[in-house]
Amino acid sequence: MRKEFRDLVEPGEAARLIRERDLGGGTEHVPLREARGRVLATRIDAEIDVPGFDRASVDGYAVRARDTFGAEEADPAVLSLAGTVHAGERPDVAVEPATAVEISTGAVLPAGADAVVMVERTSLDGEEVLVRSRVAPGDGSMVAGADVAAGERALGPGTRLTPRELALLSALGHETVAVRARPRVGIVSTGDELVRPGEPLDSDRGQIYDVNSYTVATSVEESGGEAALYPHAGDDLEELERVLKRAADECDLVLSSGSTSAGAVDVIYRIIDEQGELLCHGVAVKPGKPMLIGELGGAAYVGLPGYPVSALMIFRRFVAPAIREAAGLGALEAARLAGRMAVDERYREGRLRLMPVGLVEGPEGTLVYPVDKGSGATTSLVDADGIVEVPPDTEQLDAGQAVEVELFSPEIRPPALLGMGEDDPVLSALLDEFDSPRYLPLGSREGLRRLREGVPDVAVTAGPVRREVETVELGGWRREWGLVVPAGNPETVSGLADLVDRELRFVNRDRQSGLRASLDDALEELADERDTSRRELEAAIDGFGLTARGYESPPRRVLAGKADAALALRATATTLELGFVSLGHQTVRVRAAPDRVDKEAVETLAGLLPPEELLDRYEGFELSG
Amino acid sequence: MRKEFRDLVEPGEAARLIRERDLGGGTEHVPLREARGRVLATRIDAEIDVPGFDRASVDGYAVRARDTFGAEEADPAVLSLAGTVHAGERPDVAVEPATAVEISTGAVLPAGADAVVMVERTSLDGEEVLVRSRVAPGDGSMVAGADVAAGERALGPGTRLTPRELALLSALGHETVAVRARPRVGIVSTGDELVRPGEPLDSDRGQIYDVNSYTVATSVEESGGEAALYPHAGDDLEELERVLKRAADECDLVLSSGSTSAGAVDVIYRIIDEQGELLCHGVAVKPGKPMLIGELGGAAYVGLPGYPVSALMIFRRFVAPAIREAAGLGALEAARLAGRMAVDERYREGRLRLMPVGLVEGPEGTLVYPVDKGSGATTSLVDADGIVEVPPDTEQLDAGQAVEVELFSPEIRPPALLGMGEDDPVLSALLDEFDSPRYLPLGSREGLRRLREGVPDVAVTAGPVRREVETVELGGWRREWGLVVPAGNPETVSGLADLVDRELRFVNRDRQSGLRASLDDALEELADERDTSRRELEAAIDGFGLTARGYESPPRRVLAGKADAALALRATATTLELGFVSLGHQTVRVRAAPDRVDKEAVETLAGLLPPEELLDRYEGFELSG
Repeated sequence: MRKEFRDLVEPGEAARLIRERDLGGGTEHVPLREARGRVLATRIDAEIDVPGFDRASVDGYAVRARDTFGAEEADPAVLSLAGTVHAGERPDVAVEPATAVEISTGAVLPAGADAVVMVERTSLDGEEVLVRSRVAPGDGSMVAGADVAAGERALGPGTRLTPRELALLSALGHETVAVRARPRVGIVSTGDELVRPGEPLDSDRGQIYDVNSYTVATSVEESGGEAALYPHAGDDLEELERVLKRAADECDLVLSSGSTSAGAVDVIYRIIDEQGELLCHGVAVKPGKPMLIGELGGAAYVGLPGYPVSALMIFRRFVAPAIREAAGLGALEAARLAGRMAVDERYREGRLRLMPVGLVEGPEGTLVYPVDKGSGATTSLVDADGIVEVPPDTEQLDAGQAVEVELFSPEIRPPALLGMGEDDPVLSALLDEFDSPRYLPLGSREGLRRLREGVPDVAVTAGPVRREVETVELGGWRREWGLVVPAGNPETVSGLADLVDRELRFVNRDRQSGLRASLDDALEELADERDTSRRELEAAIDGFGLTARGYESPPRRVLAGKADAALALRATATTLELGFVSLGHQTVRVRAAPDRVDKEAVETLAGLLPPEELLDRYEGFELSG
Repeated sequence: MRKEFRDLVEPGEAARLIRERDLGGGTEHVPLREARGRVLATRIDAEIDVPGFDRASVDGYAVRARDTFGAEEADPAVLSLAGTVHAGERPDVAVEPATAVEISTGAVLPAGADAVVMVERTSLDGEEVLVRSRVAPGDGSMVAGADVAAGERALGPGTRLTPRELALLSALGHETVAVRARPRVGIVSTGDELVRPGEPLDSDRGQIYDVNSYTVATSVEESGGEAALYPHAGDDLEELERVLKRAADECDLVLSSGSTSAGAVDVIYRIIDEQGELLCHGVAVKPGKPMLIGELGGAAYVGLPGYPVSALMIFRRFVAPAIREAAGLGALEAARLAGRMAVDERYREGRLRLMPVGLVEGPEGTLVYPVDKGSGATTSLVDADGIVEVPPDTEQLDAGQAVEVELFSPEIRPPALLGMGEDDPVLSALLDEFDSPRYLPLGSREGLRRLREGVPDVAVTAGPVRREVETVELGGWRREWGLVVPAGNPETVSGLADLVDRELRFVNRDRQSGLRASLDDALEELADERDTSRRELEAAIDGFGLTARGYESPPRRVLAGKADAALALRATATTLELGFVSLGHQTVRVRAAPDRVDKEAVETLAGLLPPEELLDRYEGFELSG
């Protein structure tokens, strides 16, 4: 019943299979006003002269140049004023010998005139124009066709239209322009568990928000395609088949994406195999092995992996180039950046790995570290700046080794500040002061460990820290921690002992967190008092092993009625309008890596500490002694 | 009556004046689907855990890890199958000791389970699940909040939303997102002579197509603003005042642009000065001196120069940064490229010059040459790749001098092939074979001159060439030239002598053109026959001095009934369905600069010559001897 992926094709072969599909790309006519970013379908030759007439390029007097010969400041040529011509008017006068016609910039040069004297070089005396310097034929004017001449090759096919090209097309009088049609890409999202963002989520039923529909659709648009979202299909065979066929009927390319369950993949596999043609099922690449390539009813078909990170990376690598090509955009010149691995990275799966990486500016250049939160993660790509391709036969990248990063987009730069460690609301607000900070809330312990490895600029720790790492302390603050309980504290929880002695459902924090370290210390103390071991007390707490990662996660379980008490901050209890039982204060410390203290953003951060104003805004926060 | 610009402010001061205006930039809520490219207005912290439940990350069996301890291929752990849970379902079964529950990727881990064994490591025997390898707690599953934990700082204010950020926002369930509002920019176009592209043009009245409206509007959009075009106003004071005020009322920024006539500028000047506040009139920069900065009815106001090239350059330099800033996009990191001047360039106006330049790849790196067709030109910017800033006190840039080019956009590269010289329909079509060619139809003489200066890769000449320039001939073709006359040749023109002897209105080509060189030779011959001078004959031709620049320009004057005969190609007569009197054939030669013959595109071009198939398509074209 379940399908395994055998006969993986090589990445190059998969790219070829997609490239060879016909993704449309005809011609359409769009108004000039909407043509920015589009690609010319045909060559455009000028059919008119621009300007279409000999034109004054200054305000002044149209003259016969020879009438000004010899004129100078002290001895002006005296011409008689014969009339006036403004821009947008047909001249009703000619320039006869020894006459001049007043003319505005842009106006038609009257017959007989071959130059314009700038008004600044003249003076008017009744009906006489005094010209105070000589002009040569052509001065102060622009001959018809001088800008663009009829017959000129104006723009070639394949030209991407920016305002500069639109200027030329306007000048030639084009109202609409023939551009490459955008390939139409249908996105069929599958999976019973998916809920559209904005709708309520039932986590107990395993529902999650549909990530792929939006991100694949916007990626399609970013690549020059037109995206159509098809009604969210469950894993029901008939409905899925109907939607897929409709999408294939209406689009040049159909992408399916969303479900990670083998059931849905099986159904799609069967539909493509039986009703269309399946060209590839499985590619030797990580992430993204379960990729399908085929055809259905005249449309190309690509089945993206269900996990968002995998789906986006496979889209970028294999699908985006084909869409760009069909849209006439040509290959995207990927921006590349040379860096060195900050850490060792092992890999032994024997297939090409597209490794998302983050960047950080170290004292000796750009450092590169892998970003990987597991295949179900959606944040990995936000925390990453680009990709390092690890060839199938590479088993290890060593710290210090040179690698080339393909940036997600050319304007990406290493973040101004890279921090890792404890999560904290004051810290979150403090980071708003920076233009492009990156902070990974890995917990105090993990933050310090990564700092010792040489990755982040700063680590933020809270509570007791047992790890010995050489750091430069930039400053910090204190925060009140304890047990969050339902509003009004209906169970009248009064302290840690209640968790041990009573039947209360507790939610803990993970071992990396500084809140957990403080709780462990408090439990140690209680064990000492009771002359027992901490382990005994832990075993007596219902839910001690039930940990959550973020500082709001445990209290939100209390809020949802799923727990009676949670390890959290007083500030969070206040925010969520829950009860709170204080267990003490702990110190939050911002600690810089010794080799990064001179970095601009680190110095800025140090200057912002302690963040007095922010501390006032959050309950239970205060200056550290 | 006419206004001069005195008290020019320095460019830095003008930039400051615009930067200090309030260009709006509030907050608006947009659906996620339309949020790509927008900028987050506020920080977004996660309010839910993602995933919201402990989740299977593989297809397999949910187990208690300790039940698998010791299991191996030959000695599997035997667990009894207790049920099934699919993605999107609430588990209706718990995992008791020595049991397993079938589970799909993405499904909720049932109570009691702390790991999932991959299906590949199991086999099913009736109601018994044989587990063939041990798992540790957490294996095959993803704990709630592992991806994003509630309380985490998800995205900071000012983050530009790409599909990666949209993935995270989808995962957090956001249906809409608070983004920076786009500043609303009104564009008031002035000038009686302007005609909207697509409408008929009356060149005799000095009409030209409105270039600035479209190009400024699309430039505004490129910079993150929202552009509104205001009805095309003439130079009428009252109408202009009404439109300006309406625009100021409805927009954050009003740009006026279009007319180059001092009249319109005066009117606007007066309106801003009397009804609003005028902060600057005139900036010490070329092009763009006549720039106005002010305020009107609460909106910022900038008056762009009327010439399209000036308007766009001033917009890019002074206005775009302010719009980007208000839109939250921050400064555009201009892409820069180092090159060397290909030619000398003199400049003595004592104000900052923004010099549009083209790029060409020479054997020793990138060469930079000025592109300037005069201030009325619209094509200059299409023929340019970027800008070199020439400081006010620089009087000359020498050939070979290092300069830095600010590229119009980061993806710009020097064109694959740079040609200059004669314009020719076969050549235009031949260039379609190249991805990004650039060809400047400057005429045969000028093309050769520029080649000798070291600028283009190839020069294309037609007819007799008197200039001695060392080139490598790549190939060529022949084309028939002569006099284009109205269809049916109503005046029965039979040859060159008719132009001299009869009252025919003629249109000539400019001196740079190869057609003109052939005509001059033919006239020389006729003069010899008649024992007179060429000059005499020229004087006898009505319109000999009336020249046009493109190969279609003269015959189009015949088509419009403005001339009786024009110097042109037989192919053009055929295209325009006009009559033709042959005067002979001339050879078109494609000649490479000796130091560029090894350039890839030059080799490609040589390989395409002679373009037999193309020659068949145009009448009067043939292989050269």
